[in-house]
Amino acid sequence: MKINIAVLPGDGIGPEVTNQAIKVLKAIALEFDHTFLFKEAPVGAIAIDQQNNPLPDQTLDLCKSSDAILFGAIGDPKYDNDPTAKVRPEQGLLKLRKELGLYANIRPVKAYDMLLEKSPLKREIIEGTDISIYRELTGGIYFGKKHLSEDGNTASDLCEYSKYEIERIAHLAFKAARNRKQKVTLVDKANVLETSRLWRKVVTNLAKGYPDVTLDFLFVDNAAMQMILNPNQFDVILTENLFGDVISDEASVIGGSIGLLASASVGNKHAMFEPIHGSYPQATGKDIANPVASILSAAMLLEHFDLHDEANLIKKGVEKSLKLEITTPDLNTSYDNITTSKVGDFIADFI
Amino acid sequence: MKINIAVLPGDGIGPEVTNQAIKVLKAIALEFDHTFLFKEAPVGAIAIDQQNNPLPDQTLDLCKSSDAILFGAIGDPKYDNDPTAKVRPEQGLLKLRKELGLYANIRPVKAYDMLLEKSPLKREIIEGTDISIYRELTGGIYFGKKHLSEDGNTASDLCEYSKYEIERIAHLAFKAARNRKQKVTLVDKANVLETSRLWRKVVTNLAKGYPDVTLDFLFVDNAAMQMILNPNQFDVILTENLFGDVISDEASVIGGSIGLLASASVGNKHAMFEPIHGSYPQATGKDIANPVASILSAAMLLEHFDLHDEANLIKKGVEKSLKLEITTPDLNTSYDNITTSKVGDFIADFI
Ligand SMILES: CC(C)[C@H](C(=O)O)[C@@H](O)C(=O)O
Ligand SMILES: CC(C)[C@H](C(=O)O)[C@@H](O)C(=O)O
Repeated sequence: MKINIAVLPGDGIGPEVTNQAIKVLKAIALEFDHTFLFKEAPVGAIAIDQQNNPLPDQTLDLCKSSDAILFGAIGDPKYDNDPTAKVRPEQGLLKLRKELGLYANIRPVKAYDMLLEKSPLKREIIEGTDISIYRELTGGIYFGKKHLSEDGNTASDLCEYSKYEIERIAHLAFKAARNRKQKVTLVDKANVLETSRLWRKVVTNLAKGYPDVTLDFLFVDNAAMQMILNPNQFDVILTENLFGDVISDEASVIGGSIGLLASASVGNKHAMFEPIHGSYPQATGKDIANPVASILSAAMLLEHFDLHDEANLIKKGVEKSLKLEITTPDLNTSYDNITTSKVGDFIADFI
Repeated sequence: MKINIAVLPGDGIGPEVTNQAIKVLKAIALEFDHTFLFKEAPVGAIAIDQQNNPLPDQTLDLCKSSDAILFGAIGDPKYDNDPTAKVRPEQGLLKLRKELGLYANIRPVKAYDMLLEKSPLKREIIEGTDISIYRELTGGIYFGKKHLSEDGNTASDLCEYSKYEIERIAHLAFKAARNRKQKVTLVDKANVLETSRLWRKVVTNLAKGYPDVTLDFLFVDNAAMQMILNPNQFDVILTENLFGDVISDEASVIGGSIGLLASASVGNKHAMFEPIHGSYPQATGKDIANPVASILSAAMLLEHFDLHDEANLIKKGVEKSLKLEITTPDLNTSYDNITTSKVGDFIADFI
């Protein structure tokens, strides 16, 4: 199989970890006789530095003409505390999602047995957790009209949703639930928000087409509690953009390491794969960032093209690296000299 | 001292737990020679059932003419899954907050040593946690214009904030920090929302008037992670309405029991005190609901009137009840016959 992959390493540790994912994909290509073509382009703070644009046209064009996108991370602290900055790295990511129509962000959260001790939660609470979060990614308050009054004293953000936007991701969530534990939990704030009530109505109707799947509702504040009290109650979580941002980040730490979590952002035509962790500026250039999330993003990419044997081999490599403690310092209690690239080498060699 | 207290028991376990708080306040009145006058009025689902209005005029009038309000809980599942219901219990609470100008919701989150084992988090993570959350309560997306298209296929909610709304609660948060660990963390989503950027700008400016207090920023998704990874890093958290709803509920469970957490909602003229837990319909009428959060809300009420000795005596009573395991079943591992009212009796007798 031939796959054209656009590589967008982005900011901070993005380039370092993405390099390991590429290394692993190259090993897969060799082993299974595929052709993966990688083309790189800038995005985020680095693109602002180079071209004063967090998503240059050539980058967007490359993404549009590729079969899949491998994304690193975005964000630079120098923009965070400047509320007046006109151009911000995140705009690049948001525009990319919107332009490519990547409406569904899928985040698997799994408690790895080997890492239970690392979780901030007690073992008996986290053990067995296996959640798949479906977050709407191109609507809601992220993309609604923004306003700042001329005197700069009043601001607003509009949260909007349409039936169509809700249905297309809901279908994905229900289909996923069919192959899992047949349960979808809709997280919303229907006791306060009109948009949440629309979500509840649309999803309730759509659920009738999936009689084998149970539909549950949870207010987002309660969901934030339940995620810590009893994460095992969840199978598939379906939610809107902002709630998904918060709940999926919360979920991402209960497993013991955010450095292991990958995500897919998919639309009708395009698909992008990226680690959940951010640009982690403190670790940049030190060769200590955990590349596993990026490597598992590559595995999700392969799954997207139905290359399941290939994806499984990567996962086996990751599990082996965890078992042998060929892991970066964040997870390693035995050795202190295992770098980002050594983890990548190990998994590539395993393949 | 004479205090006119409006009592709004509300729904579910609200009445049961509020009764214990009243019992305790009566004991305080006797012991310290105060006069507390209690007048009760309906709110929430029960008010809808009686008068088809979640906040009847007489209830609002009573609150306006009282010195303080003791609130129980609100909400009934029969309204939750009906997105088309025109009247909902929560509207009563939201209107009350708005009409009384209760713009600051203050939620202390403390890890009680005796309850560390009950926390879903590991002891070493939660130990020592002592956070005070300042949540804006009368603005943001809760109160912005809502819209549902005529065909019912599109909905929107507007999030709005003004400098004035941000400043008044920010001052409370910074003043509180002065008497604590001199740190305020502003939780927002300034990388995406215009309103969050206004918060960041206004709070940054205002912080200059509090040179003894450190100001930190955290995106809400990161805050949801940090609350589990390292809650000890927080002192005072300042945030807008919706983020405060989610983050404070998340914070409320890390201490081991949400049944112990009280809150105050204050404005320039009025103040309301309520447990953080909701109406908990499953426990209603069983005399098993934990009344401590409501009793500690009464203590917060006394503190509001500078009756610190009185408030401290209640807290001592609560600590003693915890130590002797005179607690409801949710916390009790030794006795199984300690009811809601027995806990109230014990603390009242102690006083
Ligand atoms: C960087 C930021 C705009 C982004 C978001 O909020 O969507 C990030 O937090 C994420 O979850 O991918
Ligand atoms: C009942 C609901 C409207 C309310 C809120 O979201 O503010 C509750 O969750 C709270 O935090 O007091």
